[in-house]
Amino acid sequence: MPYRAPIEDYTFLFDHVVGLKQVTGTETFSEASPDLISAILSEAGKMAENVLAPLQRNGDLHPAHLENGVVRASPGFDEGYKAIAEGGWISISASPEFGGMGLPLSITTAVNEMMSGACLSLQLNPLMSQGQIEALDEHASDEIKALYLPKLISGEWSGTMNLTEAQAGSDVGALQTKATDNGDGTYAINGQKIFISWADNDFTENVCHLVLARLHDGAPGTKGISLFMVPKYIPDADGNPGPANSLHVVSLEHKMGLHGSPTAVMQYDGATGWLVGEHHGGMRAMFTMMNNARLGVGGQGIGGAEGAYQHALSYALERKQGKTPVEGGTGTIADHADVRRMLTTMKAEIFAARAIALSCAIAIDMQNATGSKDWAARAAFLTPIAKAYGTNVGMNVAEMGVQVHGGMGFIEETGAAQYYRDVRVTAIYEGTNGIQAMDLVARKLMDDGDAANALLDEIEDFAEAARAKLPELAEPVWDACETLREAVDQMVAQSELNQRFAGAVPFLQAFARVIGGYVHLQAAIAEGGTGPRSKLAKFFITRLLPEHAALLIHALAGADDLYALSTDELAM
Amino acid sequence: MPYRAPIEDYTFLFDHVVGLKQVTGTETFSEASPDLISAILSEAGKMAENVLAPLQRNGDLHPAHLENGVVRASPGFDEGYKAIAEGGWISISASPEFGGMGLPLSITTAVNEMMSGACLSLQLNPLMSQGQIEALDEHASDEIKALYLPKLISGEWSGTMNLTEAQAGSDVGALQTKATDNGDGTYAINGQKIFISWADNDFTENVCHLVLARLHDGAPGTKGISLFMVPKYIPDADGNPGPANSLHVVSLEHKMGLHGSPTAVMQYDGATGWLVGEHHGGMRAMFTMMNNARLGVGGQGIGGAEGAYQHALSYALERKQGKTPVEGGTGTIADHADVRRMLTTMKAEIFAARAIALSCAIAIDMQNATGSKDWAARAAFLTPIAKAYGTNVGMNVAEMGVQVHGGMGFIEETGAAQYYRDVRVTAIYEGTNGIQAMDLVARKLMDDGDAANALLDEIEDFAEAARAKLPELAEPVWDACETLREAVDQMVAQSELNQRFAGAVPFLQAFARVIGGYVHLQAAIAEGGTGPRSKLAKFFITRLLPEHAALLIHALAGADDLYALSTDELAM
Repeated sequence: MPYRAPIEDYTFLFDHVVGLKQVTGTETFSEASPDLISAILSEAGKMAENVLAPLQRNGDLHPAHLENGVVRASPGFDEGYKAIAEGGWISISASPEFGGMGLPLSITTAVNEMMSGACLSLQLNPLMSQGQIEALDEHASDEIKALYLPKLISGEWSGTMNLTEAQAGSDVGALQTKATDNGDGTYAINGQKIFISWADNDFTENVCHLVLARLHDGAPGTKGISLFMVPKYIPDADGNPGPANSLHVVSLEHKMGLHGSPTAVMQYDGATGWLVGEHHGGMRAMFTMMNNARLGVGGQGIGGAEGAYQHALSYALERKQGKTPVEGGTGTIADHADVRRMLTTMKAEIFAARAIALSCAIAIDMQNATGSKDWAARAAFLTPIAKAYGTNVGMNVAEMGVQVHGGMGFIEETGAAQYYRDVRVTAIYEGTNGIQAMDLVARKLMDDGDAANALLDEIEDFAEAARAKLPELAEPVWDACETLREAVDQMVAQSELNQRFAGAVPFLQAFARVIGGYVHLQAAIAEGGTGPRSKLAKFFITRLLPEHAALLIHALAGADDLYALSTDELAM
Repeated sequence: MPYRAPIEDYTFLFDHVVGLKQVTGTETFSEASPDLISAILSEAGKMAENVLAPLQRNGDLHPAHLENGVVRASPGFDEGYKAIAEGGWISISASPEFGGMGLPLSITTAVNEMMSGACLSLQLNPLMSQGQIEALDEHASDEIKALYLPKLISGEWSGTMNLTEAQAGSDVGALQTKATDNGDGTYAINGQKIFISWADNDFTENVCHLVLARLHDGAPGTKGISLFMVPKYIPDADGNPGPANSLHVVSLEHKMGLHGSPTAVMQYDGATGWLVGEHHGGMRAMFTMMNNARLGVGGQGIGGAEGAYQHALSYALERKQGKTPVEGGTGTIADHADVRRMLTTMKAEIFAARAIALSCAIAIDMQNATGSKDWAARAAFLTPIAKAYGTNVGMNVAEMGVQVHGGMGFIEETGAAQYYRDVRVTAIYEGTNGIQAMDLVARKLMDDGDAANALLDEIEDFAEAARAKLPELAEPVWDACETLREAVDQMVAQSELNQRFAGAVPFLQAFARVIGGYVHLQAAIAEGGTGPRSKLAKFFITRLLPEHAALLIHALAGADDLYALSTDELAM
């Protein structure tokens, strides 16, 4: 399964679309020189291509398994993980105080996408650690930071997120895991967590679980939840892992895909934990971790899409079938119009999703560097779109990747099916895409649509300016933006949240279509209207952008029709 | 995995939408009384629910495997197959002369869908036999008919289709399997075939392979292909299976899904075959078999969708999560607007796809009963739509079924993932959905759009008449139909086929949207505008039908943009 890191695309996007210069122009990120960034992308790309990509099939064919209570990772994952850790790829954006590089999250986002495109199941491990590093950095005590961050940042230890319980999934406030004050600064954690990604492994010295639990005086619901650090081995003051904690992996799930990533049921039987953040402040700390992870999972969707696309393109350029319909063609199925349609759609969607994810990362970087509320609002607004659209692109591109392969796509040996199975979970975990869309239409429009409209202003201004140069691309983007603006107004005017939720998913999809048109237009303008990205922009804006109209009709149709059919009638 | 046969839906569609009465009003099908049809649907439904549905997981968990050259089917498939055969469910529409019931294909289509919804991997076996029965009935000599049809119709023997070779998939004309005249009325078949569904089993006395091969004087391409009956065991004149033929199963594929259905590489080493149809007339005979199978595979998509939908609905009605947003709700996630949106979309799409498949079957029945060219044209026109739309609905509904399950959807034990994996192949086999769409815009518009326009006339006439009763549903259908009519004109005016092919898939999807609007409108009118199907119609027409507009923009955008990016640029 060869994989080629799409470095040229990142560089182009950084330079011409998402505006990395704003970030590197700040005091905070002034050390991120073009040379350094170029070196990082190139080295990370090589690692993804040469070390991680060869592990992709291993994970699928030889799933992680439980052996006498210990998780044994897939063959080669040990070495792959060490290459990630030793390259410093876990901690590009982590604090230099504890060994990180302190570079923009935008760079991490590109590097994460490369790693996930090469081997999604292994990359999920450092992605979890990254979320934990950020949560600790922001919310933990100095002692916990000093003890854990250097080890997590170096990759000697890895981190997990323990949120879900059997009866508390999307409704995390329903959790029942209990924390009892031991009176010595520690807490006893009791309960069972499910769907814990990389809950254990056989290649890090320790595994650090961040566990959401309720103190005895915690209110019901999300307000009474606290966050605890619960390590597999309790470290001494020097950071040497000591006695085993009272926790264990109960079982691993048998999943449709991502077999290389162990997904565990975790049991905590009076395990020793340390509070992270405030009493009953677990949700705040968790959201730090989740927001990072949501963007990261969006990147996984894009990485999976890129892998599936490259795989399909390479098959198409080898497979001969039927008479070629074009003069001077390749003589392969890549000459056939319908195969071209699929390949071009895949590429155009990946470009848009990648640009949106990087824009979101840039906004987070600017928020961190400047403390600007506007950037914070932009980051918050783009996060659910980056997550849901990125992972939808993952699913849809992998689906087309199978189709390009024809019958061979259904045969596991070709690898196309693995992308399809693996990437499917990204639309579910870290908040389902439905939850993302509900977040967008509820919390992210609570400002009466200011963040949304600020983005639409930016798009319309750009399209207005582009009109003189590329009217056939600029005008549809401007028009779509105007239609979307009206829809935002209508959504905001709808005070009953459930009416908004009814159209949340198509609303998010329509927004992604319009931002997609914008980033493609930016690319075309940067190229002066000629060049490969301009051609791709024309494809996206002419053929895919028009979908926004029907999506918005759906988005604004309200909830009443959804409840018109009773559940008995649904079951008829 | 419980399954409930949707008999009420078939009955409603037969009575109020697709017009089964036209069929039963003909001389040919005059014996198909309402009571008989009702008894058949009810008995087949019970068999699907009680016998087949319990086998669904067996097929996945215990795949068919090769044991000393013989295929061993999944546990229980033997009994399941016998229940199908003994119930007469293979041969409802087969000729009474050889033991069939001679009933309309419309009834078979409903029964096939039920069987595939209950256990897709096993149902593929009788579906293959049905195609073979029809091909033999139409093209074989009297001797072959007399020898094979009674056994295939009773299900004592099963049938397969051997078309594909490693270098001849969508381009079947590239096949290299050779047939040599033995001079005694038989032929020696030499070659290797791949992707042979149910190439062998351990529950029928014989397996009859219909094999496409080239005689020594066969021209290159499809014109030089002939069709041969090549049985696993050579029968004596009384139909007793005799000596083993020179053929064997080389290996079984390791597939993403449909594990219960063995997919084989078949080797023919001078195997004895009998010509079916004319010398070099193999393609004609094959198309008989393929057209039947295409509609049948469309039905598999719908069956898979129905199974996935029922599974998801049942999970949604049990799973409690979060506060219910509606008064008097169920207290389950089925109360949440986004879950309702998914469930209602699934149900509305299934209804439309089922109506289209049954309409196609009705047209075939009318063609068979009356010999009418118009009905033949309608049948030919609807076949690729029924196949591609039915299987797209299968994929999309199964995808939503996973999503409704949240994290549990990715865990194999819940069964949602199996629907997603199993049904994926239906968009590929019997001609990929891309091939279906190319068939639609090329062959099926060769009449300058007459068949398309006849259908659009029918829809507009109905919508026009419905306008007085349900204007808010009738008008959008009429408008969409008019937009589609213009698109048909433009597609027909495009003389260069590759320009049509470039938009073939979105064109087919748009057509399915408009016919979907039509059948939902018919249902609503039949209910007088109130009732569950009217509510579903409102959902489909208001929220899904508008997608036709963007699809048609895409469909008419031509091929040039698809080739604007060179293959090097695609690989950038």
